[in-house]
Amino acid sequence: MSQRLGVWTVGAFGGVGTTMVVGARAIAAGLVSDTGVATNQPSFAPLDLVPLGEIVFGGHDVRPSTFGESAYHIAKASHSIDLEVLAAVRPELDRISSNVKVGTALNCGTAISRLVGSESAASKGGLRETAARLRRDLAEFRAEHELDHVVVVNLASTEPDLELERMPKTPAELEALLDAEDTDTVRPSLLYAYAALLEGCAFLNFTPSSAALCGALQELGKERGVPYMGSDGKTGETLVKSALAPMFKYRHLKVLSWQGYNILGDRDGEVLAHQENLASKVRSKDSVLSSILGYELHTHVGIDFVRSLDDRKTAWDFIHFKGFLDHKMSMEFTWHGCDAILAAPLVLDMCRLAELSLRRGESGAMRHLAPYFKSPLSGTEQDLHRQYDALATYLRERGMSVD
Amino acid sequence: MSQRLGVWTVGAFGGVGTTMVVGARAIAAGLVSDTGVATNQPSFAPLDLVPLGEIVFGGHDVRPSTFGESAYHIAKASHSIDLEVLAAVRPELDRISSNVKVGTALNCGTAISRLVGSESAASKGGLRETAARLRRDLAEFRAEHELDHVVVVNLASTEPDLELERMPKTPAELEALLDAEDTDTVRPSLLYAYAALLEGCAFLNFTPSSAALCGALQELGKERGVPYMGSDGKTGETLVKSALAPMFKYRHLKVLSWQGYNILGDRDGEVLAHQENLASKVRSKDSVLSSILGYELHTHVGIDFVRSLDDRKTAWDFIHFKGFLDHKMSMEFTWHGCDAILAAPLVLDMCRLAELSLRRGESGAMRHLAPYFKSPLSGTEQDLHRQYDALATYLRERGMSVD
Amino acid sequence: MSQRLGVWTVGAFGGVGTTMVVGARAIAAGLVSDTGVATNQPSFAPLDLVPLGEIVFGGHDVRPSTFGESAYHIAKASHSIDLEVLAAVRPELDRISSNVKVGTALNCGTAISRLVGSESAASKGGLRETAARLRRDLAEFRAEHELDHVVVVNLASTEPDLELERMPKTPAELEALLDAEDTDTVRPSLLYAYAALLEGCAFLNFTPSSAALCGALQELGKERGVPYMGSDGKTGETLVKSALAPMFKYRHLKVLSWQGYNILGDRDGEVLAHQENLASKVRSKDSVLSSILGYELHTHVGIDFVRSLDDRKTAWDFIHFKGFLDHKMSMEFTWHGCDAILAAPLVLDMCRLAELSLRRGESGAMRHLAPYFKSPLSGTEQDLHRQYDALATYLRERGMSVD
Amino acid sequence: MSQRLGVWTVGAFGGVGTTMVVGARAIAAGLVSDTGVATNQPSFAPLDLVPLGEIVFGGHDVRPSTFGESAYHIAKASHSIDLEVLAAVRPELDRISSNVKVGTALNCGTAISRLVGSESAASKGGLRETAARLRRDLAEFRAEHELDHVVVVNLASTEPDLELERMPKTPAELEALLDAEDTDTVRPSLLYAYAALLEGCAFLNFTPSSAALCGALQELGKERGVPYMGSDGKTGETLVKSALAPMFKYRHLKVLSWQGYNILGDRDGEVLAHQENLASKVRSKDSVLSSILGYELHTHVGIDFVRSLDDRKTAWDFIHFKGFLDHKMSMEFTWHGCDAILAAPLVLDMCRLAELSLRRGESGAMRHLAPYFKSPLSGTEQDLHRQYDALATYLRERGMSVD
Repeated sequence: MSQRLGVWTVGAFGGVGTTMVVGARAIAAGLVSDTGVATNQPSFAPLDLVPLGEIVFGGHDVRPSTFGESAYHIAKASHSIDLEVLAAVRPELDRISSNVKVGTALNCGTAISRLVGSESAASKGGLRETAARLRRDLAEFRAEHELDHVVVVNLASTEPDLELERMPKTPAELEALLDAEDTDTVRPSLLYAYAALLEGCAFLNFTPSSAALCGALQELGKERGVPYMGSDGKTGETLVKSALAPMFKYRHLKVLSWQGYNILGDRDGEVLAHQENLASKVRSKDSVLSSILGYELHTHVGIDFVRSLDDRKTAWDFIHFKGFLDHKMSMEFTWHGCDAILAAPLVLDMCRLAELSLRRGESGAMRHLAPYFKSPLSGTEQDLHRQYDALATYLRERGMSVD
Repeated sequence: MSQRLGVWTVGAFGGVGTTMVVGARAIAAGLVSDTGVATNQPSFAPLDLVPLGEIVFGGHDVRPSTFGESAYHIAKASHSIDLEVLAAVRPELDRISSNVKVGTALNCGTAISRLVGSESAASKGGLRETAARLRRDLAEFRAEHELDHVVVVNLASTEPDLELERMPKTPAELEALLDAEDTDTVRPSLLYAYAALLEGCAFLNFTPSSAALCGALQELGKERGVPYMGSDGKTGETLVKSALAPMFKYRHLKVLSWQGYNILGDRDGEVLAHQENLASKVRSKDSVLSSILGYELHTHVGIDFVRSLDDRKTAWDFIHFKGFLDHKMSMEFTWHGCDAILAAPLVLDMCRLAELSLRRGESGAMRHLAPYFKSPLSGTEQDLHRQYDALATYLRERGMSVD
Repeated sequence: MSQRLGVWTVGAFGGVGTTMVVGARAIAAGLVSDTGVATNQPSFAPLDLVPLGEIVFGGHDVRPSTFGESAYHIAKASHSIDLEVLAAVRPELDRISSNVKVGTALNCGTAISRLVGSESAASKGGLRETAARLRRDLAEFRAEHELDHVVVVNLASTEPDLELERMPKTPAELEALLDAEDTDTVRPSLLYAYAALLEGCAFLNFTPSSAALCGALQELGKERGVPYMGSDGKTGETLVKSALAPMFKYRHLKVLSWQGYNILGDRDGEVLAHQENLASKVRSKDSVLSSILGYELHTHVGIDFVRSLDDRKTAWDFIHFKGFLDHKMSMEFTWHGCDAILAAPLVLDMCRLAELSLRRGESGAMRHLAPYFKSPLSGTEQDLHRQYDALATYLRERGMSVD
Repeated sequence: MSQRLGVWTVGAFGGVGTTMVVGARAIAAGLVSDTGVATNQPSFAPLDLVPLGEIVFGGHDVRPSTFGESAYHIAKASHSIDLEVLAAVRPELDRISSNVKVGTALNCGTAISRLVGSESAASKGGLRETAARLRRDLAEFRAEHELDHVVVVNLASTEPDLELERMPKTPAELEALLDAEDTDTVRPSLLYAYAALLEGCAFLNFTPSSAALCGALQELGKERGVPYMGSDGKTGETLVKSALAPMFKYRHLKVLSWQGYNILGDRDGEVLAHQENLASKVRSKDSVLSSILGYELHTHVGIDFVRSLDDRKTAWDFIHFKGFLDHKMSMEFTWHGCDAILAAPLVLDMCRLAELSLRRGESGAMRHLAPYFKSPLSGTEQDLHRQYDALATYLRERGMSVD
């Protein structure tokens, strides 16, 4: 019999969190196929991953809502959730919504603060007080649902970047920042990760927010023996980049410029329209190509907010390259995706694989999850195919027959 | 000291053949970089491949021309050869042109026949007589230039498809067809390959013409101990397909339809505008996806001739796929390539690697060359990344340090 | 007080017919905006067009269905109708569905025949008998709803092309064909148009089926004093073409090639996948460019059926042009439309304008409706801007203040 | 016999200036067709415009070069000038190059200043001194070549924007700025235009630099009885926008967002990569849509510098619109143009039409030239088709038979 797994999402009522819960329930009820959930394929059976229908969901959010409300909004705006499917799972959604507690919006930047409002409980309290509250929420979730393992996933909006030098490098430095109630440095993502690791939960940073996996927290994860991985889910344009760039390398074609332009309309996009939040994101998307190709090239990723797109994300990439006789040619691609639809199954996959790690007592960086991230932890392969080769090797070593 | 290598192209004065010779000379003269020629990278040094500047070129063509004339036409029409680079290598081109002999256009379909004209020597002679003539040309080329090895590459226009059941399956059946002077069945590509194998030359079928590697000829290659591979050089749209399709598989995204549309304006396109010639090509392009994805899907490749494009080839692909919650999304790409520029360095790469096989006494199908072909010999992997993994393994086993 | 207008659609339960009825009701109920219905703009008020909410709908169809069922199918497949909007108008739809009578599928080509089935009433009866039945349906519709005017719109699937020489040129020739029960020549569209004109209804051929407006029928329309227009609604790719092509003309840029490629997944697409039906369509799309540009150019329109697209239609156009110094450049566009959504408001616009013609006693070709058609009746301007200029002039002469 | 016309370009050795001179000579010599030069069509004959081959060229530039050198660089980098055509006209180019004098780079922003260098004569001298020098150059050009009329065209790189309130509104205010040697306010474009108008030359501002047609200069033009027009040549993306946007208006389709993204690699792009220069450009491109559509919409134009593109300019536009039943659809276009090739013939057209104005004694704003500009003088129509209608009316009134 499988273990009891809790998945705790930070930013639970956002597009990805909501879509994930709706999808997991709809798949379990046989209302839709399990497309997108790679770990649901027959070859994964020997790993005894927790069935989608048995995962217990909970989370933090800074805005009051319910999964039902949020899902209804998504269904009407972007049609990515079918209204009839939603109606069928809505009673369950309402029940699960009570597992979502008030998060924290301390020092998350003006864009997010404004969305939350200064009167919200999420905007109040000191750092130590908040950290304790977040831990308590996780402990209660585990106890109430008799969970063997909990995986915490950061799905919150991108925070403004912190300068590297202000990031705590050791657990001791981090504790000192908390003692000092240094709200200029400590970001919400840092508090969530801190709480997760201290509570023995695996931690996945699906956002580009760099504080969530700063040196101090990675160190803490190792000390506490819990697995973690990040950052920034690879869902669309960067996924294509990391699949396509090796082609140019194989053929010794010289990429001169790879220009990407993204437009998106969801809350994530609205937050990114703020320059301070954008920096984290762009850095995360921009490092992939030279890592794969092995040389520096002109590359740029533009992101603009286009409200009418709702949760749609359209990316146009222009690749300028030189071939034989130094002749220049080009390739373009346009990606028309729905971000939450693309992201949600990745979170499910990773939570199930994190549970595998927890069950087997593996701790530290889950480097085999690299193909799921735009910025996998430093020193990690960026080539999508090599990333999946490495994942397959990892899984085969744990008993799976991967084709 | 490296061995003496002769590269004999069928369709020598066509776009690919001409561009290859111009490029090899221009690289050797330091006029352009070696972009596109993967085998020229430092990691290949331990294999002692023949330097580009030492390759001796020759070939067959059914139309009278010279490399200089053909290159000038290309330079003016599509700017893929720089006029100043051409001027610098032109004296050498004129000298090499004398190595090109009259080919054969027997039973090559009305489209090609019309281009050649019935008065041409290429349109005359019986099968036995022609085969003997082709062999003699190869033998003289080898002798005159004191070549250690010769690689014959079929670059001629696509022939009309032959029904599988009419293809000779054994060398004996093939000899019988020649004895019978059966010009309904025997295609030029079959005669060229026959001549090459009997003369101990490696043979590469860079076209989709299926006769060139029919069962009888593969059998003959094994008997004679010579290596061969094909078919149909993977230069553009199919290359991208085979790089991109695995991405959908990794993510368990269901590809519903993959629709490709190609427009091209060179002689190849003109010949393909004839329905009988098109069939070979489309079949070749169409089999890749289901092989990689592991299921049947709606796929279609349209090809149209657009004269104004000259040697440019633009392909638009539309990929319709289903994700989580059965939500449909899409991706498009447009490829703006120059076919000869993309194809020429692949031929150089393969000829150098075929020389490696000849030098090492390897015979039969060179399956490690699969990434260069749209339709690698049956049973061969279609996933571009796995193809390159296999090639790297092959090369490492022969002393190369591949990164 | 406005007149009572009946709109009778042939192919009523198809995508366009259904979407039109749902939309007209939803706009009248204030559930959605009137976007797309140009005649609903304030400037049209002086023309006293019949309000959308007062139009009475009826029609013929060869397949048994209801507007509610058909709309539900559309809502689920392509999300172009919102399920909640549908639920709100569904009672009305069920009521209106009883106004739809059995049409005729005599001699409509194998693709359509197969969809209908030989047992259907639509597949039975002689020509005279069928024509009488269709007329009776129209007369009863008019009487039952006390309509001042009826406009018949052909929205049925594209029929196979008829050779021009077999088309009847005069009403007498047409009567002779009917007398002869010549089912090799007479197409359903011809019968529908015949019935409409004899019943004094205006007739609009929104399909490319050429029989519907053959010489004999145009003659008959003039004799009977009723207005008519066609053919083939201009909804997507051709619309863009006719808006964009003048730009090249203004600038004296020479269009070398204009290559269009359409993929679509609805019933229309399925029927067009049959070569015999496709011909009508392609001819209709192909004539626009040389008419606008004033010279012959390479142009081609490919159409392929991609079932997974449902009612979506994606068109990719590649425009190759020459500029100053004979330098070649290019432009591409991709159109992602939903055919029924684009077509339905055009039908509403035209029916309201046809009512204006009927009310004013205007008969013969309604040339001012040219901007709504891919193949407006011969001799008509194809430049979209000139077409709209002409429409504006027509409307201003009838009292409207067009900005 | 036609009048003698001098065309004096500011930024003469730039891409547009050079391409224009090469093209005019190549057309006159019969080496290339006159594609792109609309005024060369037969219908313009009654206007007796100056033949292309008789135009006398001169200009100012801040960098020392020659037309031959500049053209050779273009030919090698972007292949938009054929090397053989260049060789044929090169002797003439060298002769014409002596008509180009040193311009001024006073207060043109850091991006341009850096390109020029502080040691250049262009970077020296006071305002009054420079204005006098520029006037002298024009007067000498006119005298030396016995010209009836001179048209001055600003083709220089985009200057940083000036705040509107600092712009001189009257000739008196302008004179006061010059007296005060106010180099914080006076831009080079202002000096060039000032010199042109005082010398009785027509003035065309082909750049977005707003100083060139500030209120004071428009006033001065009227006082001196010379014609002028601007600003910012409409060559690519904006041209398409102004041709396409009316289509959405005709059909009452609601444009939700029109997002444009431009990448370009020429000197213009390099200068625009500087934020201060970019502002002028974006403002100029951004005003077109709401003017045509009649409502405010989300619109954005991104511009990035991609050096490898050289003179190529690729623009991707994404148009998100709402149709019937409030259903959202989209359209994309990609424009692959060569800026100088597109711009050069427009300059020739306008200079010939400016000569017509000078010859007929017309002065003030040449509003009929609106279709050539992204930001035609205020109050001017932006719809490309209406702009051309107005131009046709203007020309017909002057004797031309426009079809």
